[in-house]
Amino acid sequence: MEFKALRTGICFNGFKASGVRSGKQGVALITAGKACNAVGVFTRNRIKSGSVVYTRRKLRNGIMAVVVNSGNANCCTSTDVKDADTLASYASKYLVVGKENVAVSSTGIIGRRLNTKGLRPLIEKASEGLGCSGKKSLEAAKAIMTTDTKPKVFAYSHKGIIIGGICKGSGMIAPNMGTMLCFLTSNADLPRGYLKKALSEAVDSTFNMIVLDDMSTNDSVMLLTDSSKKCSPKDFKLLLTHVLRQFVKLMLEDAEGASKVLEVTIRGAKDVKTAGKAAKAVVSSNLVKTAFYGENPNWGRIANKLGGTIEVDFRKLDIVFASDRGRAYAVKSGRPQDIRRLARILKSKKIHVIADLKSGRSEATAWGCDLTPGYVKINAEYN
Amino acid sequence: MEFKALRTGICFNGFKASGVRSGKQGVALITAGKACNAVGVFTRNRIKSGSVVYTRRKLRNGIMAVVVNSGNANCCTSTDVKDADTLASYASKYLVVGKENVAVSSTGIIGRRLNTKGLRPLIEKASEGLGCSGKKSLEAAKAIMTTDTKPKVFAYSHKGIIIGGICKGSGMIAPNMGTMLCFLTSNADLPRGYLKKALSEAVDSTFNMIVLDDMSTNDSVMLLTDSSKKCSPKDFKLLLTHVLRQFVKLMLEDAEGASKVLEVTIRGAKDVKTAGKAAKAVVSSNLVKTAFYGENPNWGRIANKLGGTIEVDFRKLDIVFASDRGRAYAVKSGRPQDIRRLARILKSKKIHVIADLKSGRSEATAWGCDLTPGYVKINAEYN
Repeated sequence: MEFKALRTGICFNGFKASGVRSGKQGVALITAGKACNAVGVFTRNRIKSGSVVYTRRKLRNGIMAVVVNSGNANCCTSTDVKDADTLASYASKYLVVGKENVAVSSTGIIGRRLNTKGLRPLIEKASEGLGCSGKKSLEAAKAIMTTDTKPKVFAYSHKGIIIGGICKGSGMIAPNMGTMLCFLTSNADLPRGYLKKALSEAVDSTFNMIVLDDMSTNDSVMLLTDSSKKCSPKDFKLLLTHVLRQFVKLMLEDAEGASKVLEVTIRGAKDVKTAGKAAKAVVSSNLVKTAFYGENPNWGRIANKLGGTIEVDFRKLDIVFASDRGRAYAVKSGRPQDIRRLARILKSKKIHVIADLKSGRSEATAWGCDLTPGYVKINAEYN
Repeated sequence: MEFKALRTGICFNGFKASGVRSGKQGVALITAGKACNAVGVFTRNRIKSGSVVYTRRKLRNGIMAVVVNSGNANCCTSTDVKDADTLASYASKYLVVGKENVAVSSTGIIGRRLNTKGLRPLIEKASEGLGCSGKKSLEAAKAIMTTDTKPKVFAYSHKGIIIGGICKGSGMIAPNMGTMLCFLTSNADLPRGYLKKALSEAVDSTFNMIVLDDMSTNDSVMLLTDSSKKCSPKDFKLLLTHVLRQFVKLMLEDAEGASKVLEVTIRGAKDVKTAGKAAKAVVSSNLVKTAFYGENPNWGRIANKLGGTIEVDFRKLDIVFASDRGRAYAVKSGRPQDIRRLARILKSKKIHVIADLKSGRSEATAWGCDLTPGYVKINAEYN
């Protein structure tokens, strides 16, 4: 499959962006030349940021502007929905767009009231700085960073369809709170119902397979399209999944406090749901994660986690370790293999574990990282 | 409730014990003067140690001897059930009891074949060392230790009923594999069906509320009674729960790699199952655990985990932090309180978090510990 990388980021056609920072606070703006067809996938946490609650109600109106603040999650305060509304008012005023067409998104610490007054001049400044370029996309991507070490921007085209995106979330892998925000712009002319379904499915097989420590109150993936390009649903979905997968790769490389990236594939499961559940369970086990940190070929912890999570017949089980240093069986049809070859494989930065249950034809892959003293340090100190 | 502490450990009436160690390998023996009424609660992991598989079939026969080895889990090898049978044969021979009355239990590394020949002389030596005293109970408790720093022995009596026990498992809290073994002796004359139910319920409200990293392949709690004392089921259950709670406390104090013990109580839940699920989720969250390690009053991570696990209305939610240094609200009916008072409370070694959902009358408590660089180190290096 050929996808063409573009340098536009989220800025093409009428999409503009900007970003400003002041100390720990950041503001990014994304604007469109028209009210865009807009869909989103939001956190399933029962405690949601006021910004998420506010924005979910607005998407149907069509979105002309997104205002994003970093540094404060706007969550667990009695005024959070009202404060989101205030941010939308400011954006509406400075951008001269209807407030009903403004979406709001937040990331940062929970439980502290949003300083809307302090953000007002940042929104004003960002509105003055709006522009349509790869550079402006990068500026917006930088403004939404919290614990990320690198800004995350991509754009790809496929058969005339364009999808650009900015994303934040090293937090997904070695998170402080695990908030992942992703804003996508596109030109695809597709019905809103289809866009919603495609976004939800693409998120399920990409972002949702990176193991979150805890589901954040703020997680949001939003897609805006100006509907200027007729296209096939299938091509759009392929491109969308490709773009999200690029973000997954970047987030994995940006896992603070981690020394290794783990990819766990469960094969031979009776269905995809079972495979996904098992893959996520293995990659999120602290015992598995510390073993990989120690480059310790303790496959018993993997078998143990599998057996504690799903039905598994150990006598059929294969476990394979693979990396750029080689590939070897740890267990073959329930028989432990020579583990000396495994130690060398574990020295790599990216480790792939493949477990074959041999009880069906479904598979799924989940991603995560090792558990390190650095992870503990980062998350103990966060305020 | 008055429970009298005894110095007998598991050794009273006809119960004898002994223990020997040789390097990383240990063997403990427990014997009874007659075939005891025996019940057990075993791991629900689908991958089980051959010793668990073997022993579950034997309990109905009545048990006269238990042979326990530490250092090897006797699990995930094609011969594990056969190897358990071999250990039972040796015990049967040296103790001159029917093999069908011998239970076998193992703890240690997974996936390496049990060296039954090497264990044979240890079983012989242990059989020669059998005795009926508190000292012999301690010897057996020491022989089953793996990562425990302290042996764990208790005996209590209540209205003439006696329950003694030995237990291993610092591993439950800062585990390498998390195997918990507990062997209880008693004189209670109660039907086997009732003993089984009482043991299962007592384990559910004690051991099962200590958060395991991963459910081990070997977890076992066994109770043998010589049925010499008629008693009320209610008194027995109270005593049993008391004894298991003492082991929970000891295991919490013995949490290797941990700097703080966490107790999480969820109140005001619609039912006990919901309360238990939420309590376990909070106490096992890496973000919550690292925050406590850092003495960081980040109650947002607790609210976040609650909202990601069960139905919760944040506007009703209370979160209280308590320790020997005081007690204070972090959140009261959804309103964040002054967090400066919380920092002092978090300096203690034992922290109690109470969350009141105000949506029912049920409550549950779970126990765990903080996540520290020491935990990572211990579990990275284990072989």
